[in-house]
Amino acid sequence: MSLEATLQENKLLILDALSQDDSETLESLLPDLRSADIAAILSDIAEEDEDRQTVFSLLESLSIERRANVFGYLSGDLQAELADLMADDRLLVLLEEMSGDERADLFNVLDEDRREGLLRRMAHREREDLKRLASYEEGTAGAVMTSDYVAIPSGLTVSQALMRVRQTAPDAETVYQIYMIDDQGRLAGTMSLRQLIVARPGARVDDLMIKDVIQLGVDAPQEEVARIVAHYDLLAVPVVDEEERLVGIVTHDDAMDVVEAEATEDIHKGASVGQLEGGVSRVRLWSLYRKRIVWLVLLVFGNLFSGAGIAYFEETIAAQVALVFFLPLLIGSGGNAGAQAATLTVRGMATGDVGIRDWGKLMGRELLVAGALGLTMAIAVAPIGILRGGEMVALVVAMSMISIVLFGSLLGICLPFLLDRLGWDPATASAPLVTTIIDACGVVIYFTIATAMLSG
Amino acid sequence: MSLEATLQENKLLILDALSQDDSETLESLLPDLRSADIAAILSDIAEEDEDRQTVFSLLESLSIERRANVFGYLSGDLQAELADLMADDRLLVLLEEMSGDERADLFNVLDEDRREGLLRRMAHREREDLKRLASYEEGTAGAVMTSDYVAIPSGLTVSQALMRVRQTAPDAETVYQIYMIDDQGRLAGTMSLRQLIVARPGARVDDLMIKDVIQLGVDAPQEEVARIVAHYDLLAVPVVDEEERLVGIVTHDDAMDVVEAEATEDIHKGASVGQLEGGVSRVRLWSLYRKRIVWLVLLVFGNLFSGAGIAYFEETIAAQVALVFFLPLLIGSGGNAGAQAATLTVRGMATGDVGIRDWGKLMGRELLVAGALGLTMAIAVAPIGILRGGEMVALVVAMSMISIVLFGSLLGICLPFLLDRLGWDPATASAPLVTTIIDACGVVIYFTIATAMLSG
Repeated sequence: MSLEATLQENKLLILDALSQDDSETLESLLPDLRSADIAAILSDIAEEDEDRQTVFSLLESLSIERRANVFGYLSGDLQAELADLMADDRLLVLLEEMSGDERADLFNVLDEDRREGLLRRMAHREREDLKRLASYEEGTAGAVMTSDYVAIPSGLTVSQALMRVRQTAPDAETVYQIYMIDDQGRLAGTMSLRQLIVARPGARVDDLMIKDVIQLGVDAPQEEVARIVAHYDLLAVPVVDEEERLVGIVTHDDAMDVVEAEATEDIHKGASVGQLEGGVSRVRLWSLYRKRIVWLVLLVFGNLFSGAGIAYFEETIAAQVALVFFLPLLIGSGGNAGAQAATLTVRGMATGDVGIRDWGKLMGRELLVAGALGLTMAIAVAPIGILRGGEMVALVVAMSMISIVLFGSLLGICLPFLLDRLGWDPATASAPLVTTIIDACGVVIYFTIATAMLSG
Repeated sequence: MSLEATLQENKLLILDALSQDDSETLESLLPDLRSADIAAILSDIAEEDEDRQTVFSLLESLSIERRANVFGYLSGDLQAELADLMADDRLLVLLEEMSGDERADLFNVLDEDRREGLLRRMAHREREDLKRLASYEEGTAGAVMTSDYVAIPSGLTVSQALMRVRQTAPDAETVYQIYMIDDQGRLAGTMSLRQLIVARPGARVDDLMIKDVIQLGVDAPQEEVARIVAHYDLLAVPVVDEEERLVGIVTHDDAMDVVEAEATEDIHKGASVGQLEGGVSRVRLWSLYRKRIVWLVLLVFGNLFSGAGIAYFEETIAAQVALVFFLPLLIGSGGNAGAQAATLTVRGMATGDVGIRDWGKLMGRELLVAGALGLTMAIAVAPIGILRGGEMVALVVAMSMISIVLFGSLLGICLPFLLDRLGWDPATASAPLVTTIIDACGVVIYFTIATAMLSG
């Protein structure tokens, strides 16, 4: 059974038990479910019913460890709504139980006053840790890292180090990568637990550790974090502050979430949709409207240039109305080829396959490929040109096709690089933007060729 | 310095040393580099120079362990080309040194005759393992899994189990998740190394292990594997055959590669580009042409429907040429809104956020959002309608805008579900396909409204 089907089935069982006030069934169901699944089910219930009471009481029926785990999987919006239903005491207990990075995320969705109140009731060290983690800008290594890592001072033997790992195991996010820090708290080396358990117990960790550690600064963008983890197949990557002190680690599962979120963002941008908080089926309608309308209206005005082009050539069109027949076909084809080229370039840049220095090479390749594409499409469309308007019209259409497809494809390659140069996200070169520009230019190309060739 | 810049710098140093035949510098450079980096540099060199000799001799200068590691990171095409330059003896040594899953991948890029020859020279057990791993269909759990996992029989104590882990550590892909198998080789339970090292040495593993193990069949699609690993934050997921025998595991790093590859594939499909083997800057030009031309030509014929629509309304157009001014604008806007809706739906389905049962709900939401979008865009375009053709034309354009945007958006939601129902990949509902359909229907909607309202 697929993941979704299992979740759906369990959700129905839970809702059934709830509606019948059957706490016995509930208590037998919940312990068997994994935290990620309970969270998915709660999110699903929250999505279907505006009332948060059901979700809230389900959460309250869990043990505190369980509740903290489940809470970490919920979206920021839902966390905020549930926290509003919670007294300060309960919220403090929950925050204490959560892991460092998730605690900071939850803290960040609370409103200012509440945060102040909660901070005042925390122990000094906890407060400082939370304030620090919550202070990093969203989308940076600092914001996705956790401070629950295993760090050991230099000078220990393997067996001493193993003892330390055993002691910290219950609280650490991962114990499989261990970090050695010097007197100043700077990262001195790293060792995997695998290396540690096969090493001679009396050996010194300092002699065995890897000193050339892959690390990132707190300000590194989260895409970079995910790319490093993926490129080197890491379990976790350490994050250091300006003084090279170890302040946190980003684990493989958080890096995976970043890869998924970044892909979704890029895919949405590719269709000119702004960054959504949460999935399409959950996000508020108003937010969905806002994230879509901006580009749509901008593109309406972009499309006016196509109209202006048509107006300029009104005489040519009036003399030869049959030309209009081929207009959607030509600008549509150019737009499609351009969208392909832009999409290939943008994704290549996002995955690191294409760099700014590859610009010239990609243009050269595209010149060949787009030339071949344009020629093929011109051959496909020429017979229809002969049928509808005779040989001259066929020639005009075929020449326009090659020109527009070439122009569109080269634009599709250039635009992402240009945007990147200007400091914009290359993904802004979306299919709608590219097709809108090609539409306007395609009109001019087509009717210029037509005017020149048919006016005689 | 960014990942790319570091790689670029090291590449230049290596090429420099090579061109000067400076083997001393080379020997001091290479050991400091990580395998993933050497592989990236080699791929880069291979991309710029058709001659494989440089890459080949660089590889040969590495130790065999190193070479096996680096080889695992190279693309299938490059692996095949390099294997062609290698004698059978060298290739056998390389295959033996590689990890199970990478060995099978390399094996699969060799040609039939060579494979037979190599198999004949392998030990029985090795041969069977390789044949089995290489036999799974691409894109399934079986094809991405590795057989180098730590499995222990039931009945052991914690300290006995730890001893087993230490013994298998050098060969296993991961030692952090350990699997317990019964007499029939069936998966009986699992334990993390973290649990194992904190447990009492004399305790029995069978009493401590988790019996309800998340597992997948060998035929499960790789997207499902990646989704399970991401959803449950797993380090690895076990894969079982039809008899529920444990046959392999998929580790987090391979799952991450799947997530990246699937996202790239979906992004490319979103622009009607077929599945590419390798990045856009590396793939052969002929292959790039083939992957793009199919849909482009299909869409040319799709666009003919727009032309046919225009031909049908030729009289209306001839009587009121100003209407053509708004044509690109209207069909373009509908296409953009439709592409947004389709993209949101397709990505939602890919991440599991949207299921087939959400169809009705999404349609209801889109009706509201698209209505608001269409209204906003109609208001934006109406003044231009007044300017160019008077109040009646403005009214025609505004009404057409709302209708086309609504139609396009609803089509964008429906199409992915429809394709899914037909057993196609929902991602086939690409921006180009959606805009082509909306272009044709938009022409009919616009001129029908125009004919009805302006003919009086």
